[in-house]
Amino acid sequence: MLEQIHQSIDELYEEMVQIRRHLHQYPELSFQETKTAAYIANYYEELGLPYETNVGGNGVIATLKGTKPGKTIALRADFDALPIQDEKDVPYRSKVDGVMHACGHDGHTATLLVLAKALKAYEQDFPGTVVFLHQHAEEYAPGGAKPIVDSGAIDHVDAVFGTHLWATTPLGVLQTSKGAFMAGADRFEIEIQGKGGHGAYPHETKDAIVIGSQLISQLQQIVSRRIDPLDTAVVTIGVFEAGEAFNVIADKARLVGTVRYVNPLLQDKIIAEMEAVIKGVCISNEATYSFDYIKGYPPLINHAEETELLLQIAEDMKEITRTEEVNPSMAGEDFAYYLLKKPGAFFFTGAQKDAQPYPHHHPKFDFHEQAMPIAAKTLITTYFAYQAK
Amino acid sequence: MLEQIHQSIDELYEEMVQIRRHLHQYPELSFQETKTAAYIANYYEELGLPYETNVGGNGVIATLKGTKPGKTIALRADFDALPIQDEKDVPYRSKVDGVMHACGHDGHTATLLVLAKALKAYEQDFPGTVVFLHQHAEEYAPGGAKPIVDSGAIDHVDAVFGTHLWATTPLGVLQTSKGAFMAGADRFEIEIQGKGGHGAYPHETKDAIVIGSQLISQLQQIVSRRIDPLDTAVVTIGVFEAGEAFNVIADKARLVGTVRYVNPLLQDKIIAEMEAVIKGVCISNEATYSFDYIKGYPPLINHAEETELLLQIAEDMKEITRTEEVNPSMAGEDFAYYLLKKPGAFFFTGAQKDAQPYPHHHPKFDFHEQAMPIAAKTLITTYFAYQAK
Amino acid sequence: MLEQIHQSIDELYEEMVQIRRHLHQYPELSFQETKTAAYIANYYEELGLPYETNVGGNGVIATLKGTKPGKTIALRADFDALPIQDEKDVPYRSKVDGVMHACGHDGHTATLLVLAKALKAYEQDFPGTVVFLHQHAEEYAPGGAKPIVDSGAIDHVDAVFGTHLWATTPLGVLQTSKGAFMAGADRFEIEIQGKGGHGAYPHETKDAIVIGSQLISQLQQIVSRRIDPLDTAVVTIGVFEAGEAFNVIADKARLVGTVRYVNPLLQDKIIAEMEAVIKGVCISNEATYSFDYIKGYPPLINHAEETELLLQIAEDMKEITRTEEVNPSMAGEDFAYYLLKKPGAFFFTGAQKDAQPYPHHHPKFDFHEQAMPIAAKTLITTYFAYQAK
Amino acid sequence: MLEQIHQSIDELYEEMVQIRRHLHQYPELSFQETKTAAYIANYYEELGLPYETNVGGNGVIATLKGTKPGKTIALRADFDALPIQDEKDVPYRSKVDGVMHACGHDGHTATLLVLAKALKAYEQDFPGTVVFLHQHAEEYAPGGAKPIVDSGAIDHVDAVFGTHLWATTPLGVLQTSKGAFMAGADRFEIEIQGKGGHGAYPHETKDAIVIGSQLISQLQQIVSRRIDPLDTAVVTIGVFEAGEAFNVIADKARLVGTVRYVNPLLQDKIIAEMEAVIKGVCISNEATYSFDYIKGYPPLINHAEETELLLQIAEDMKEITRTEEVNPSMAGEDFAYYLLKKPGAFFFTGAQKDAQPYPHHHPKFDFHEQAMPIAAKTLITTYFAYQAK
Repeated sequence: MLEQIHQSIDELYEEMVQIRRHLHQYPELSFQETKTAAYIANYYEELGLPYETNVGGNGVIATLKGTKPGKTIALRADFDALPIQDEKDVPYRSKVDGVMHACGHDGHTATLLVLAKALKAYEQDFPGTVVFLHQHAEEYAPGGAKPIVDSGAIDHVDAVFGTHLWATTPLGVLQTSKGAFMAGADRFEIEIQGKGGHGAYPHETKDAIVIGSQLISQLQQIVSRRIDPLDTAVVTIGVFEAGEAFNVIADKARLVGTVRYVNPLLQDKIIAEMEAVIKGVCISNEATYSFDYIKGYPPLINHAEETELLLQIAEDMKEITRTEEVNPSMAGEDFAYYLLKKPGAFFFTGAQKDAQPYPHHHPKFDFHEQAMPIAAKTLITTYFAYQAK
Repeated sequence: MLEQIHQSIDELYEEMVQIRRHLHQYPELSFQETKTAAYIANYYEELGLPYETNVGGNGVIATLKGTKPGKTIALRADFDALPIQDEKDVPYRSKVDGVMHACGHDGHTATLLVLAKALKAYEQDFPGTVVFLHQHAEEYAPGGAKPIVDSGAIDHVDAVFGTHLWATTPLGVLQTSKGAFMAGADRFEIEIQGKGGHGAYPHETKDAIVIGSQLISQLQQIVSRRIDPLDTAVVTIGVFEAGEAFNVIADKARLVGTVRYVNPLLQDKIIAEMEAVIKGVCISNEATYSFDYIKGYPPLINHAEETELLLQIAEDMKEITRTEEVNPSMAGEDFAYYLLKKPGAFFFTGAQKDAQPYPHHHPKFDFHEQAMPIAAKTLITTYFAYQAK
Repeated sequence: MLEQIHQSIDELYEEMVQIRRHLHQYPELSFQETKTAAYIANYYEELGLPYETNVGGNGVIATLKGTKPGKTIALRADFDALPIQDEKDVPYRSKVDGVMHACGHDGHTATLLVLAKALKAYEQDFPGTVVFLHQHAEEYAPGGAKPIVDSGAIDHVDAVFGTHLWATTPLGVLQTSKGAFMAGADRFEIEIQGKGGHGAYPHETKDAIVIGSQLISQLQQIVSRRIDPLDTAVVTIGVFEAGEAFNVIADKARLVGTVRYVNPLLQDKIIAEMEAVIKGVCISNEATYSFDYIKGYPPLINHAEETELLLQIAEDMKEITRTEEVNPSMAGEDFAYYLLKKPGAFFFTGAQKDAQPYPHHHPKFDFHEQAMPIAAKTLITTYFAYQAK
Repeated sequence: MLEQIHQSIDELYEEMVQIRRHLHQYPELSFQETKTAAYIANYYEELGLPYETNVGGNGVIATLKGTKPGKTIALRADFDALPIQDEKDVPYRSKVDGVMHACGHDGHTATLLVLAKALKAYEQDFPGTVVFLHQHAEEYAPGGAKPIVDSGAIDHVDAVFGTHLWATTPLGVLQTSKGAFMAGADRFEIEIQGKGGHGAYPHETKDAIVIGSQLISQLQQIVSRRIDPLDTAVVTIGVFEAGEAFNVIADKARLVGTVRYVNPLLQDKIIAEMEAVIKGVCISNEATYSFDYIKGYPPLINHAEETELLLQIAEDMKEITRTEEVNPSMAGEDFAYYLLKKPGAFFFTGAQKDAQPYPHHHPKFDFHEQAMPIAAKTLITTYFAYQAK
C-alpha cells in the first residue's frame, strides 16, 4: 500500500504545486490567517474528511481514521507568512503588499493537503489514524503550537512528526538530530535609567551610555564563564539606543536582544545570570533598570527512538540520497511544544533550488517544489513504520 | 567724566530695556542675524558714529575716537539667538517660532549700544578710542569671533574686554578668573564598521555594539589615566546608536560626543589618545572606523594683568557688591579667539532674576535687566582704568 | 579462548594488585621514569616476550605474535606519576617524597603487564599480534605519545586501544564517545609591558594593571562572540601578577592561562583571535607585549567504527553493567596522538572506590583495584572483536 | 635685629652642616626615632632653652619666649628617616643598614636647631614666642603630627610655619600655594572572594581574575565620570595578585592601591563611590569582598593670608631669587594637620644639588646644604613679619 501511496503522491504533484503557488500569492500574517484556514478547511470539506477549525486559534485539524487498528499519529504543517516584501520575479509572487511566504509554510500546507488526498483513496485498508495538523502562527511567539497543545487537540495522538522544507539543504538530503535539533529563542529588553545632564558635567549625572556599555561588556561573561563550555548559549544585544545630542549626557539607554540556547535547563540560569549582572552594574552606578525577558519557543528536542525510526526509513527511500545527523540549528520552532507532550521527530527536507540559494526570511526566498512530494513520502513512510513498531 | 558717564547710563536705562525687549522679540539664529545687524548699524547711523558692517560675516563694528590720545580698546557684545522655543509668559516673548534669545545676547547688545550713546556726549574730551564690537554667531561653531579676528578688525586695538550677563549669579556679583575662565569645547563622531549578521551566529559577525561598548569603557581611561590629575578634561559620549532588530547583530555603531578641556595643550593630546584607543579596539575586533573630530572654540584664557585691573575697578564700584575669582566654566565661548590675539579679559555680570533661576539655554530663561547698566559701567570703568595704566 | 583468557585474568588478580601497589610505592615523575621502565622491561624479560626499550624516550614496547594470522593491535598503558605528596593512609602509600601515582597510571601498567602474562599461555592458537605499548610521560606536555608515534613504533599496527581507570565513575560503567572524547589543552603566557611610575601621576605611565584588566575583559569575547556557539572553547586566565607597592604604578603584568577546545580546527582560530585582542589592547594603550602560546595535546577524537565495536562488546560483558556515551571531558590526554595516526578508541573504566571519591590529581586519590581486571578484559575482548571484523 | 639674626645663621652654617651630617649617619625609622629625639632634647638642654619631650610620641618641643609681647608661632621640623638603603658615596652616608634620610628631614632638624641657637642670643629684646616643633614620624601614616595636635601642644600658638627642603627645585627658589599645596593620600586594599576551580570548568567557579579585571575597568569611571572635572583625584591600583597555576581558576584576587585628592570634600565621596562599584561588581558576579580603606594625611591647605605674607617677605630676601605659586603636589605631608588647627603655611625651599638631581626617596637622594640657612632665614623672617601684622 505504501508503494501505491508514493505513486499517488507523484501523480498529484501538479496539484501540490498549484496549491502551493495559490497560497504563495495570498499570504497572511501570523494570527491573521483566516482565509488560509478557510482554504484548508474547504479542502477537507471537499475531500470528505472530518475536520475541526479554530483549534487553538486559526488551527485546522482533519482526521483520517483507517479501518484497521493502529496508532494515532499527527503530521503537522504550519501555514502563516511573514511581514516581508516579496522581491521575487515569478508569476506566483505575493499579491499582498509587505507580506510573503518567505519561509516555505505554503509548501508545508500543500504537502499535507495533497498527502491527505492521496491517503483518502486507501481509507479502506488503512491502519491507524492520521491526524492532519494544520498549525497557524509559527513565526510569531507565543505561536500557534502551544494553544493547540493546550486545547487538548493532541492528547489522543501517539506520536507527532513534522518537517520543514529547507532551502539551503540540497534536494534529496534529510537532516535531523536524535536530540536537540533547534534552539530555544527568547527576546529581552533592558532599559537603564541613569540621570542626564550637560556633557561637560559628568559628575552631576549617571551616564546611561557608559553604564550600558559596561553592562554589555559584563554580559559577555555569561557565555564565556558561566555556561558549561559543552553547552550552547548566545546572548546578543541587537539594539543599543541612547542619547540625542552630542553635548548632553543621556539619562536612558535601551538595549534589546535575543538569547539562544539548546539545553532546556539553561533558560532559567541565563535569565538569573542576566538579572544579576544588570542589577550589579546598576548598583555600581547608582542607576535603576527595567528588564523584560520574553520567553520564546523552547528548544526542539527530538525523541531518540522516533528519530532513529525516521532515519532508518529515510535510508531506504530512493528519493533520499543522504541522511545527516546535524548540530542543532540556532533558529527556533514551536514544533518544540508537541515534542514536550508526545513522542516524535522533526526534520529538514532538503529543498535547495539554486546553487546560491537565498536563505529563509530573505525577500527573494524560494524553494525547490520537488521537495514537497519527498516530504510527503517521508512523512507517510514514517507513519507506516511507526505503526509496525 | 567717568562719574557723569555712569549717571548717563542710569538715565538711559529705559532705552536699554526697550532695545533689549525689541531684540528679544525678533531673535535670529547664528549666521542668519541680518536684521539684528541692520538694527545695530542703524543705531550707530542715527547716533552719528562711524561703523562698518559685514565684518567677518554679520559683524558690525562702530568706533568712537576721543579727542585726547589714548589706547584703542574693543568692547564686545554678541547678538545671535538659539533654536529654542520661548516658553516665557512675558510681553516681550519671542515672536519667532522656535527661535529665542535664551542666552542673553539681546542684553549684551542693548548694553553696548546704549553705552555708545552715553559716551557720544563726552566725545570732546574723551581719551583714546572705543571700538564697539558687535559679534554675530557665538552660539554655533566655528562662530563669528574667528572670522572677525581673521579679517584684521582688531589688529589695531590694544585690548579687548567683554562680559556675559549670567543668570545664575546674583545681581551685583562679578565673576572672573585670572587665567582659564571657560573651557575648550569640541565635538566628535565615531563610526564603528563591524559586520552584521543573525543574532544567533555571533561568530560570523563583528558585533558593532559589543565593539562600541568596549570602546566607551576604554575611552574612560583617557581622563582617568592619561591626563594630568591637575588638569581638567571631559570626554563624553552623548549618543550611541546601533542596531535595528533584537535578533540581528548590528554592523555599525555611531558614537557622537564632546570633549572639554581647559589647558590648551590638552586638545591635541586628547585627540591622539582617542585615536589610539579607537584604533586599538578596532584592531582587537577586526573592525574599521571613521573618526571625525571637529575642533570647537579654544579655552578662554584671561590675561592676568587685565583681569587684575578689572577686579580692582570692580572692587571700587558701588554697584558691585562682590567680586569672585572662580574656577573655569566648562562651557565654551568664542571670545577666546580675541584673547589669543590681544590682551584683555572676559567676565560674568551677575544677572539673576529669581531665587530659582532658569539656566542659560532653558526655554524659560530670562535675566535681571538691571544687570545691563552694571555691565555697561564695568566695561567703561575698565576702559578708563586701562587708559590710565 | 576469550572466555579462558578472562578466567586467567581473574586468577592473576592478586599479582595485578601486587604490581600496582609496588609501582604505587615507587612513583617516578614524567620523563624520569627509568626504574619503572626497567621494571616493565624485566617483567617481559621474565615472561619471555620480545620487547624494546627506550622507545621515544622511556617507552617500552613488548609484542605477542600469535600463530594465527590477524591484525596488529596496540594496547596502551602510561606509567608516569605526578609531583604531588601522597596523603593517603594505606600500606602501599608512596615512599617517594612529593611524588605520587595520583592518576592511576600504576593501575594501567599493572593491568597491561598481567594481561600479557594471561595471553602468553594462549600464544599457540592466538590470532594476530598484540603490541603492549607502555608509554612514559603522559602527565607533562609535550608528553611521551608524540615521540613514540614519531619513532615509527606504531606504523605497523592496525589499530590502537587504551583506557583510563576513572575514579569518579562507578565500577562496572564504561564511558566513551564516538567522536571527541577529551579536549585539546594548551597553555599561554602573556606579558604586558607598560611603563611604571608614581601612583599619583598616572599620566606619566602606561598602567600595566589597567591594560591587563582591559585585556581580560576583551578576551571574554573570544568565547562569547567569536566561536560558533555549537563549538566548545574555554579561555582561562589562571594567574594575574602585577605590581609590588600600593603607591607605584606597575610597568608589567603577567597573565598565564589555559585554552581548551574540542574541535581541532579551533586551536589556530583561538590563537589568532587572542593575538588580535592582545595587539589591539596594546595599541590602544601604547604598550608592548609578548605572547607565548604552548600547544599542548590535541583533542582526543575517537574513531566512530572502533568505538562502536568497543561499545558492542562492552554491552555483552557481564562485568560491565552500563555503557555511556558521554560529552567530551575538558581534560587533555596524549593518547590523542595515536588516534591521529591510527584507528582506535579510548575509554574510561569505572574505578570508583568510595561514595565520595577523591578526584584525579588529589593528594588522597585512590581507585578501586577491581577495575583493573575489568579493563584488561575489555581491552582483550575488543582485540578479539577487532580481529573478527 | 632680623638682619643680625640672618648674619648669625650664616656664621653657624658649619654647625648646621655638621649636625645634619651627624643625623644623616644615624637615621631612625618613623616611630622609632628615640636617639634622634634625645639628640634634639640634649641640644636644647645645652642651649638652655626649656623643652618638652615625648610630645605625642617622640616629639620634642622647645620654646623661646622673648621679653617683648607678641604672638606665639610654631616652626616645625620633622626628623624621621626611611627604610631605604643609602647608596650615596659620601663620608656622611648612613651607617644604619637599610635606613636612610632619603627625604631631607635631617636637614630640617639641623636648620631648626641652629636657628634656635641663633635666636638665643637675641632673647632679651625678642618679641613674641617661638615654638620649635620637632616632629617625629612624618613618613608613615598615621604620622606624628596628629598626636602632637591631639596632645594640645599647639593649642596656644597663633600660627605655624614649616618648610620642606626640595631637592628637585633650584637653590634660591621658594615654592608654595595660597590654597591646596599637597594632596590627600590614602591607601586601600580590596579582596575579591570568588570560587576557584579547574581551568576547564569556568561555569563551576566565580573567576576572581575576571571579576577583579572588571572592577578595575569600572573603577576608572570614578575619576572619568563621577568627580567634578575641575577637581583632582587619582585612583591607582598598584598591585593585582591572583592565581597560582595556569590551569586553575583563582578563587581570590587582591588589589592594593592609593587614592589622591586635593579637595578635602572628595575623600568621603571617593570612598562611597568605590564601595558602590565594588559592591555592584560583586553582586554581578555573585562574589563577596572585603574593602579596607586606610585614610592617610588630609590635603595640606595653606591659609591664604599667611601664605601671602610668606610670599611678600620672600620677595624681599636677597637669598631668594624667585617665588613660585605652584599647582598642588600629589604627595602627602602631615603638616596638613597643623593647618587644620591653626593658621599658617608650608613651603618648599629649593635645595637642588646637581643638574640631574635624584628625587626624594631615591637611594642616592641628597640635597644642597646651603638651602638650610635659606630655610632658617625664611622661617624667622616670616616670624618677624607675622609679629608686625
